Amino acid sequence: MTETISWIAVDWGTSNLRSWGIDAGGEVVSTASSDQGMGKLAREQFPAALQAVLAQLAPPSTVTDIVVCGMAGARQGWLEAPYLDAPTDLSDLGRGAVHPEVPGTEFRVSILPGVCQREGGENVMRGEETQLLGLASVTPGYEGLVCMPGTHSKWAQLEGTRITTFSTAMTGEMFELLKTHSVLRHSLVGELEGPERETGFQAGARAGLDHPEALLGQLFRVRASALLSGRTPDWCAGFLSGLLIGTEIAANRSQIGTDPVPLIGSAGLCALYARVLAMAGATGRVVDSTEVVLAGLKAARASIA
Amino acid sequence: MTETISWIAVDWGTSNLRSWGIDAGGEVVSTASSDQGMGKLAREQFPAALQAVLAQLAPPSTVTDIVVCGMAGARQGWLEAPYLDAPTDLSDLGRGAVHPEVPGTEFRVSILPGVCQREGGENVMRGEETQLLGLASVTPGYEGLVCMPGTHSKWAQLEGTRITTFSTAMTGEMFELLKTHSVLRHSLVGELEGPERETGFQAGARAGLDHPEALLGQLFRVRASALLSGRTPDWCAGFLSGLLIGTEIAANRSQIGTDPVPLIGSAGLCALYARVLAMAGATGRVVDSTEVVLAGLKAARASIA
Repeated sequence: MTETISWIAVDWGTSNLRSWGIDAGGEVVSTASSDQGMGKLAREQFPAALQAVLAQLAPPSTVTDIVVCGMAGARQGWLEAPYLDAPTDLSDLGRGAVHPEVPGTEFRVSILPGVCQREGGENVMRGEETQLLGLASVTPGYEGLVCMPGTHSKWAQLEGTRITTFSTAMTGEMFELLKTHSVLRHSLVGELEGPERETGFQAGARAGLDHPEALLGQLFRVRASALLSGRTPDWCAGFLSGLLIGTEIAANRSQIGTDPVPLIGSAGLCALYARVLAMAGATGRVVDSTEVVLAGLKAARASIA
Repeated sequence: MTETISWIAVDWGTSNLRSWGIDAGGEVVSTASSDQGMGKLAREQFPAALQAVLAQLAPPSTVTDIVVCGMAGARQGWLEAPYLDAPTDLSDLGRGAVHPEVPGTEFRVSILPGVCQREGGENVMRGEETQLLGLASVTPGYEGLVCMPGTHSKWAQLEGTRITTFSTAMTGEMFELLKTHSVLRHSLVGELEGPERETGFQAGARAGLDHPEALLGQLFRVRASALLSGRTPDWCAGFLSGLLIGTEIAANRSQIGTDPVPLIGSAGLCALYARVLAMAGATGRVVDSTEVVLAGLKAARASIA
């Protein structure tokens, strides 16, 4: 069915590249991915990395229209796509696209811009803006907070296709840093997915929700609990995870209304966030992240000049 | 003058070992140190590490009474000295000492216990309790909060020689982790002690004091400020340092009264904490940390059985 592909959608992040062949009716007819994320590539290696994935999607001669979101447009990526300044209407996202050349091909590659915020706390995103545009496409008229859990969680205020403000919490990266490099690592050696993980997670989430201002102090409880109460590695891992997510959600609690908060991210992480939102008296609604990135790439393609 | 030494005081931490020869009048007559901290030693290596330092202090045959505080008494140290449970009166610290043997010598080594807290947030300290006892000795009757900045900052409530509660903030370790291993490291490459460090420090401290609940979000401002506003590495390092210290102090602000808060730690770090305390409308009072550890070892020695 590859002959029916009319354009190719690409989500090119720091760690991975995902791509989809889309037919004229907007349906996905093939997919391919690789581990050639922006973080592994020098500038001149991007064209070959793209071609290697596209060769799995479609005969190279048939499709030339390629729309890319994510870190490929960063300053240290393939070709910089300057940020749009928030507040901004994401329905114009395609107008900010840049077009790197792929030597020896007829490809028209469009890399979408990210969004930055200069007032009220400097911030940047690349990739999430396309998911937000997609969310606005699949749930038209949604107004309110959106939570995108991950290595660097984003929290954005959306008014239809318009993004007004956003922030970034280094929650996922912090978990990995503390687990791998800090003194807490001594309490996190062994089976981390055992039966005590759940109890630890709830205790940590409660502690983070109740005292988000005390994170630097509460972290050390992982170590002290292991030393004094013989807490197991699975309990400690759960506590650390819950503490970080609880602290993150508490910091954003005042912005959360009564509508369910859309959660865009990996299924496992979104489920954890939904549980902690419930503990905070709020509600989360898990959104299919592939669906919204595809909807966003499609919507952005319509505005590419 | 080494013949006048009557006992030897030792502060044996994770990274270093410091020792002092003390005469019958309680004066320091010689000092020696090494980098043979607990973290580098297997159990059987402690006696030799101690003897190597003592050889610089005094003729081995003349002095046998050695009092040690710090991580040498940890479970993974030389010989475990079980924690005293807070609340506890530190004037009894010597009663909890343990006495490891040094084969082939007449040494009587006394390793002082640490203090733990089981209720109201599990916590542990080893070494700081001796400094707190020393503080109580040199400023009798002091009641209130004591701040001990460092890799793992301790905040303790003292009532004379009695410690009631305490907490640990992983502030110093967090700075090193983020600087070395996180995405923020990209903004912290170059001259970190330049002229912009001060401006960054003040901005970070203000941000931490005003919104300690938002630490996970504010950290990312280091990266965004470098990307969007061209903030220099020295500004970024200052911001990160100020943000962490401001967040730590804000979390403890409600416990700080009108009396100056004693600060025990390295001179440079104590000066930074004193500045941020002033920004929070409080006052810090820098205490000589060597003076209080020596006063604490001396006071504890009096209660060793």
